[in-house]
Amino acid sequence: MNFRSDNNAAIAPEILRALNDVNGPASARAYGEDDWSRKLDERFSALFERDVRVFTVASGTAANAIALASAAPPWGAVLCHREAHIERDECGAVEFYSGGAKLTLIDGADAKVTPAALNAAIASNGGDIHSPQLAALSISQATERGTVYTPEEVAALGAMAQANGLAFHVDGARFANAVVALGCAPADITWKAGVDILSFGATKNGAMAAEAIVAFNPKVAETIARRRKRGGHLLCKGRYPAAQLLAYVEDGLWLRLASRANDLARRLGAAAERYLSAPAHTNQVFIKPGDANIAKLRAAGVEFYDWGKKGSAEARLVVSWNQSEADVEAMRGLLASLR
Amino acid sequence: MNFRSDNNAAIAPEILRALNDVNGPASARAYGEDDWSRKLDERFSALFERDVRVFTVASGTAANAIALASAAPPWGAVLCHREAHIERDECGAVEFYSGGAKLTLIDGADAKVTPAALNAAIASNGGDIHSPQLAALSISQATERGTVYTPEEVAALGAMAQANGLAFHVDGARFANAVVALGCAPADITWKAGVDILSFGATKNGAMAAEAIVAFNPKVAETIARRRKRGGHLLCKGRYPAAQLLAYVEDGLWLRLASRANDLARRLGAAAERYLSAPAHTNQVFIKPGDANIAKLRAAGVEFYDWGKKGSAEARLVVSWNQSEADVEAMRGLLASLR
Amino acid sequence: MNFRSDNNAAIAPEILRALNDVNGPASARAYGEDDWSRKLDERFSALFERDVRVFTVASGTAANAIALASAAPPWGAVLCHREAHIERDECGAVEFYSGGAKLTLIDGADAKVTPAALNAAIASNGGDIHSPQLAALSISQATERGTVYTPEEVAALGAMAQANGLAFHVDGARFANAVVALGCAPADITWKAGVDILSFGATKNGAMAAEAIVAFNPKVAETIARRRKRGGHLLCKGRYPAAQLLAYVEDGLWLRLASRANDLARRLGAAAERYLSAPAHTNQVFIKPGDANIAKLRAAGVEFYDWGKKGSAEARLVVSWNQSEADVEAMRGLLASLR
Amino acid sequence: MNFRSDNNAAIAPEILRALNDVNGPASARAYGEDDWSRKLDERFSALFERDVRVFTVASGTAANAIALASAAPPWGAVLCHREAHIERDECGAVEFYSGGAKLTLIDGADAKVTPAALNAAIASNGGDIHSPQLAALSISQATERGTVYTPEEVAALGAMAQANGLAFHVDGARFANAVVALGCAPADITWKAGVDILSFGATKNGAMAAEAIVAFNPKVAETIARRRKRGGHLLCKGRYPAAQLLAYVEDGLWLRLASRANDLARRLGAAAERYLSAPAHTNQVFIKPGDANIAKLRAAGVEFYDWGKKGSAEARLVVSWNQSEADVEAMRGLLASLR
Repeated sequence: MNFRSDNNAAIAPEILRALNDVNGPASARAYGEDDWSRKLDERFSALFERDVRVFTVASGTAANAIALASAAPPWGAVLCHREAHIERDECGAVEFYSGGAKLTLIDGADAKVTPAALNAAIASNGGDIHSPQLAALSISQATERGTVYTPEEVAALGAMAQANGLAFHVDGARFANAVVALGCAPADITWKAGVDILSFGATKNGAMAAEAIVAFNPKVAETIARRRKRGGHLLCKGRYPAAQLLAYVEDGLWLRLASRANDLARRLGAAAERYLSAPAHTNQVFIKPGDANIAKLRAAGVEFYDWGKKGSAEARLVVSWNQSEADVEAMRGLLASLR
Repeated sequence: MNFRSDNNAAIAPEILRALNDVNGPASARAYGEDDWSRKLDERFSALFERDVRVFTVASGTAANAIALASAAPPWGAVLCHREAHIERDECGAVEFYSGGAKLTLIDGADAKVTPAALNAAIASNGGDIHSPQLAALSISQATERGTVYTPEEVAALGAMAQANGLAFHVDGARFANAVVALGCAPADITWKAGVDILSFGATKNGAMAAEAIVAFNPKVAETIARRRKRGGHLLCKGRYPAAQLLAYVEDGLWLRLASRANDLARRLGAAAERYLSAPAHTNQVFIKPGDANIAKLRAAGVEFYDWGKKGSAEARLVVSWNQSEADVEAMRGLLASLR
Repeated sequence: MNFRSDNNAAIAPEILRALNDVNGPASARAYGEDDWSRKLDERFSALFERDVRVFTVASGTAANAIALASAAPPWGAVLCHREAHIERDECGAVEFYSGGAKLTLIDGADAKVTPAALNAAIASNGGDIHSPQLAALSISQATERGTVYTPEEVAALGAMAQANGLAFHVDGARFANAVVALGCAPADITWKAGVDILSFGATKNGAMAAEAIVAFNPKVAETIARRRKRGGHLLCKGRYPAAQLLAYVEDGLWLRLASRANDLARRLGAAAERYLSAPAHTNQVFIKPGDANIAKLRAAGVEFYDWGKKGSAEARLVVSWNQSEADVEAMRGLLASLR
Repeated sequence: MNFRSDNNAAIAPEILRALNDVNGPASARAYGEDDWSRKLDERFSALFERDVRVFTVASGTAANAIALASAAPPWGAVLCHREAHIERDECGAVEFYSGGAKLTLIDGADAKVTPAALNAAIASNGGDIHSPQLAALSISQATERGTVYTPEEVAALGAMAQANGLAFHVDGARFANAVVALGCAPADITWKAGVDILSFGATKNGAMAAEAIVAFNPKVAETIARRRKRGGHLLCKGRYPAAQLLAYVEDGLWLRLASRANDLARRLGAAAERYLSAPAHTNQVFIKPGDANIAKLRAAGVEFYDWGKKGSAEARLVVSWNQSEADVEAMRGLLASLR
């Protein structure tokens, strides 16, 4: 029973088929001039109900770092939650791509940034030449604790970002899971709520290695293109990442995959309700069952990550798009048996 | 008839099959802890007849830049040919990954660096605190003009690099084509000749998006790993690039694919012998047939890049691993008809 | 009455005289090859009772950033107090010079890092490829709240740094004030306590623009020299910064200047004892007299900075080496009159 | 007889006096808020006959690197002469401050860039995402071979820069010597000729450590201010560099100093006419008298640098603002005696 991470999962059959299909033509133009890459802007513009520019990259780290480097100068401060992926799991990629920008960390329950906390962080910046320049706000949707921001919550942050001259970035490594959980349109939690740039994840939800930087502000397109090239993320055989992303959003595949994962996670959450350490909104379930129970789960062969501070006896269970029902049922039984 | 570049070509069936096969298991450890990634070091150590460390990345630009950043400090000078890919086609990726290293350009026929030219470049460095520190030599094998360095030529450069404290890097975007053309072992033109680090290309020769940084010097492994992570090139689903590279070197596939491309290119070269502007050692053919003939080829529907200085009426024809015989025969006819 | 900062003060007459004297010879070798620059290593080696290498720079920001860039790789984490100058007042200079290192912030009373807090910060690092690599510890001596670390306290941190593979840096912008307050030898709170590199400040304590990076570990000398050059801090007319530093440490001038400032500050501290928000160990006095009293001081013409969080009604009073007794006495009267 | 470099010279008495005078007030606001720093913009605006923004830094390397980093993105190409100081003598400072911009080198007689050579360099840029983006042109005035660009020559380059979207920077480490040699107004060879930003040198011509970045385009002021701060070049005691620069331009001191140096150099040039390897326009004299004569000069106790390629038997003689007449006359005798 592997609940380590959705990044352990295989590729969805629809996406694998698309990779096989796109390999048909013996040759195709390189560096995004192929027929598939050229469809991306249009396809994503339809999805987001406005003109957007799309840039494929091979990882979420690349998407976040390139997006934020386009939003913050080397002397900029990027405001984000203390548990944000860009802070905890990317080995300083934002600092690297931006040329030395600083992450300013915000605390908050359930890995969420609240307007009050954002306001306090903004107020604590020196505001002069000696302090980094407030440049961007980055939130994760869904968050690193599986929670989501409602459209209203995003819009409140977006308004505050705009009022303070901050670019607004969303790390959407699990964007599909959030959209499904919220039952909203992608536009509702992005540009309509003031978001300027989105890391649109696909890899964790069934793709192989394909993430899209979605720019709602066309002015940053040139710098994104340059940074992607210099980072080695402008792939010559562009048809393959393009095919993944096109298949991913075709006929709502992305939402079906996320829906299944969310539903199964909800079942786990229900079975572990008394131990939940964060609301199980999406495909991640956080529990604090105590050391003995964690040992019991491991002894039963369940794979998962410890979470939170060392010694907090917290576990993260992630349900993948292709998690077997059998796994989930067995895990429910185990969770119910904890004492 | 597309002779634009081998990066326009589709994926070889053996590699596509490997991608399909590796997708079998529902889950696999992420970030290189999967069974396939773990085989890479051993497999490549066998190929190179000594212990090596292998790091997969998604593009040749990433491979070159990460490799050279591990070899040159921010104040280092990387010596390379004026026509090197790192100078002309990577938008400053080496400068980006290294934190500002400088490429010092060397002229030479057929895009090759000679010992004499290398010596002159070394001698012209100021050698004090005001000059960049001589840090690395980078050559391309095969070169940007399709030529190759013999084992002896590599070894002569390697000895000079060592004597001057330079790390020695090879951009092997078309390494397979060089190995086939030389009829040598991979070791003969790498570590046995003083090479410290190799960008081992697979994408242009039949893979989808998979290049390997091969480190012959284990001391640079830690910095390569860190730079890859920060660059967004440590993919979570590592089994897919690993599967490509394993299939690529399995049973000599890489050499068969390159062999076919080289052979077809040799046929083109023979048909265009009077126009050759560089020896057609590998799968690239450079010709200077004059403006009228270039126009004639274009009018006949041949796709290719102009090369060299503007107005030089030079063309580059690249033969891909899957180029059709029909294409090559038709092109031979066209070339023979030029006047 | 200007208690804004010791960086507002003029140059000490001894140092100004040295600048006039060193201007005597019509010419002198550039870039540190002059007679005065050449004495620095020897002079500071005597001061620190061991062989050291000294690098002059024009500002404390440059000293800190170059020192830490020599101690932390681009993917490194530098552990420091949340109120550290490198975090709050240098606009990301460490991030810039290091190529993107990350400051990991530690809380603690009186702007001091305790071994327990350091230990917790070390423990919370992920310790894998996804987390920044723990690289350096930086403390300020005296601290940003005017407090000092005893030799034992420094040594405890030094031992922990060494045990965890951290380089140990001290920001000594007010190092003289600390040495005087502690009554110790410079060696006692540096290399004897495990410190690898020191930003030795002179500007705030009577120099014009001269700080010294003092390297106790000779291995970092080459990288410091390169980073200083690239940062534009290797001055051609090196005799002038050298003359400042030589005069500064001649016959204990630096300690006399700091002693006077500390003594006057102690008087202020005694007068404001009921309001002190940090122990007045050196030449800075922090008070929390409430909003009304702060307004009263300002109305009386006292210049100073608000400190701490917005709304905390805290004030910082800094006594300079040349602060007039009259200022101090007048201020004592004002402080005594607060209600 | 020291003809090594004008950066070996002492400080002019007027400037030393200004440093002594400005030290009068016991305290002054820090970081450029003092009375002297505040006069800089106005004083230089008068000098240049238009509104300019002035930023003091401690070295010419800092001035050039910060200026060019404000003009070129990390993926930009800075076009400059192969012998430019930024290429040969600054250890990659432009690359460092810009985050990896590339210097594209242009050949030309007398260390000058011609419109034709500039045009060729522009044309040879790939002009696509794979090539660096043409961003800036940088020339030296006077050049590294002591020659000057006439106002018309600057204007021709300025027009070409503008037509190609290039920012236009002048490295004026010896700007005074050029102005004097040309007999023009500072405006004639800067903004009136299309220059956007100037490194205005004072150190080599009599100051201690003071250079001014002069921005004719107000849009770059914010980024210059930030880069200066992060580079450690925003000095706290701003009155001292400001006082140097104010004294330097007061009553034409800068022109008098340069005039004297140029005149003495002209005498040397006349005595060495048969050996001149570049026109002696300013205070540098380049001669190619052959190996034996170079040895003879050295044997006579003359200090100077070899110049040009190794083995070219070329010497550079630099006359400083305070060079003694006796030195010059003795040197004239020596030069006349060469055979």
